[in-house]
Amino acid sequence: MLVDFTQAVNELKEAEDILILCHRNPDGDTLGSGYALLRALRDMGKRASLSCYDRIPDKFHYLRKGLTPVSCEDKFIVSVDVAERKLLGESVSEKYGDRIDLSFDHHGTSRLFAKTTYCEPDSASACEIIYNVIKALGVEISADIASCLYTGISTDTGCFRYSNVTPRTHRIAAELIEKGADHSRINVRMFETRTLDSIMFERMCLDTLECYAGGSVAVITVTVDMMEQCGVDRSAIDSIKPITRQIDGVEIGITVKEEENGKTGVSVRTGESFDASLICAHFGGGGHARAAGCEMALSPEETKMKILEYLYNDVL
Amino acid sequence: MLVDFTQAVNELKEAEDILILCHRNPDGDTLGSGYALLRALRDMGKRASLSCYDRIPDKFHYLRKGLTPVSCEDKFIVSVDVAERKLLGESVSEKYGDRIDLSFDHHGTSRLFAKTTYCEPDSASACEIIYNVIKALGVEISADIASCLYTGISTDTGCFRYSNVTPRTHRIAAELIEKGADHSRINVRMFETRTLDSIMFERMCLDTLECYAGGSVAVITVTVDMMEQCGVDRSAIDSIKPITRQIDGVEIGITVKEEENGKTGVSVRTGESFDASLICAHFGGGGHARAAGCEMALSPEETKMKILEYLYNDVL
Repeated sequence: MLVDFTQAVNELKEAEDILILCHRNPDGDTLGSGYALLRALRDMGKRASLSCYDRIPDKFHYLRKGLTPVSCEDKFIVSVDVAERKLLGESVSEKYGDRIDLSFDHHGTSRLFAKTTYCEPDSASACEIIYNVIKALGVEISADIASCLYTGISTDTGCFRYSNVTPRTHRIAAELIEKGADHSRINVRMFETRTLDSIMFERMCLDTLECYAGGSVAVITVTVDMMEQCGVDRSAIDSIKPITRQIDGVEIGITVKEEENGKTGVSVRTGESFDASLICAHFGGGGHARAAGCEMALSPEETKMKILEYLYNDVL
Repeated sequence: MLVDFTQAVNELKEAEDILILCHRNPDGDTLGSGYALLRALRDMGKRASLSCYDRIPDKFHYLRKGLTPVSCEDKFIVSVDVAERKLLGESVSEKYGDRIDLSFDHHGTSRLFAKTTYCEPDSASACEIIYNVIKALGVEISADIASCLYTGISTDTGCFRYSNVTPRTHRIAAELIEKGADHSRINVRMFETRTLDSIMFERMCLDTLECYAGGSVAVITVTVDMMEQCGVDRSAIDSIKPITRQIDGVEIGITVKEEENGKTGVSVRTGESFDASLICAHFGGGGHARAAGCEMALSPEETKMKILEYLYNDVL
């Protein structure tokens, strides 16, 4: 059931022994929301803990600075930034999926898997919602809470770069900086730190770059072997995907990625003239207008030719 | 002479036939300030024009959208974001350098070359100052003015990423978005568009990457030949300079750049443990604590060895 803001806040006010759940493959927004809420609830004198299916990446460890584990009975369960139950991760979903009391989310595709859901699809980040929740709970925004919330806002907006940013996003960021958010150090950590391996991997990916259709289509091809040679994991692919589309003149940027299972994953990024989700839908995939994906049971080379053939014949 | 905000605004109110000067190698802040002020003065019914020593790069052409040239007598001359006279560029400095009436600047190193100067060293961008000037002039912030001001704020803060960002920076950005600044398209243009040549150049630069001192020092070496091969100009170097320091574990990032005149330029970027300006001062250069530069009358290879020798012996 969808509830309004006041009701969601009232549920939290009355709750005791609260377990906060983040989504699997945790990012800055789910962890920033989770730890900010955890800190606020503890500041209210409540017992609260946080759980996530995956290990929390080192670069986010500052979010839990100074927090100690508490024994907590999980009487009330809240999920943050979780659009659907399966995104909790298998074991967490099995254990808690049926008994989530309250979901705070900002995805337009949010499913109503919790008993009550408060969702703001226009919010650039879950952290903007949690900022308002913490204010409504009457908790003072400490420097640590501010850093948690800033992290989610900054990461979910590409550091205020994306079209999801609203005036509210900037106004909240202003207040968080006033409250002591360690903004520039957070941004260095989130956006300006890369491993030598990932840089070498990017260089190797650029070696595969090909342009077609007068420079309006660009393709990068990534193999399992390349990833093994550079010692990078799947997350390294995320920083490769935007590259093709960022090239001046490229309207359709494609990253073709050999998977371990013998299939080939395809990421499509488009400029304003083409719809990435329509291109991927042709191959059974989907996504958003500017970023979408699909998978084919073909080699990377065959996959690339298949997509180019389709683009030349039906799209361009 | 330094003047206060009110006096600077009053000078503008009384001025007629105003020429606005930007700095050479124009960036988003000098052009954003200049065109925003130009638009505001014209909205007040004044004649105003803008001049810059260098050609305005294509990516900034939207700043002057809809503006037509006017015949203007240059009775009152204002410079924006110009820290010292020589930054106007030679011919502009010769023609106007002695008769600049008012300088708006935000550099801590600002020189008092104009008759009157209004400077806010704590302002992240000149555009934040011009925003306040336009408000004080009583001019409504149009969507075009908003886009000009947003451009300067966004580019001078690395899209709200750097430590120079203040709560005010975000609050002004919020209002500019409300007034119609085309924020996400501006950010795509400023931060997400790269030429194929510049990507190939970056790849070639990465091929020269070397790490020293257990990975705490990284060096990239750029030759004139590399730039010619890729067909890129000096500005391509700016996107190379941050790369070394961004590598996880690197505290001192160095870019060594062969110059046309046979000398070698050096850019040093440091983490919090080292002062780039002190390192460069040792070789007769200077700059800021996190980013500085110097020049040597040596080959790139000799320059690199000279710096490494100094770092190993006296700094690390």
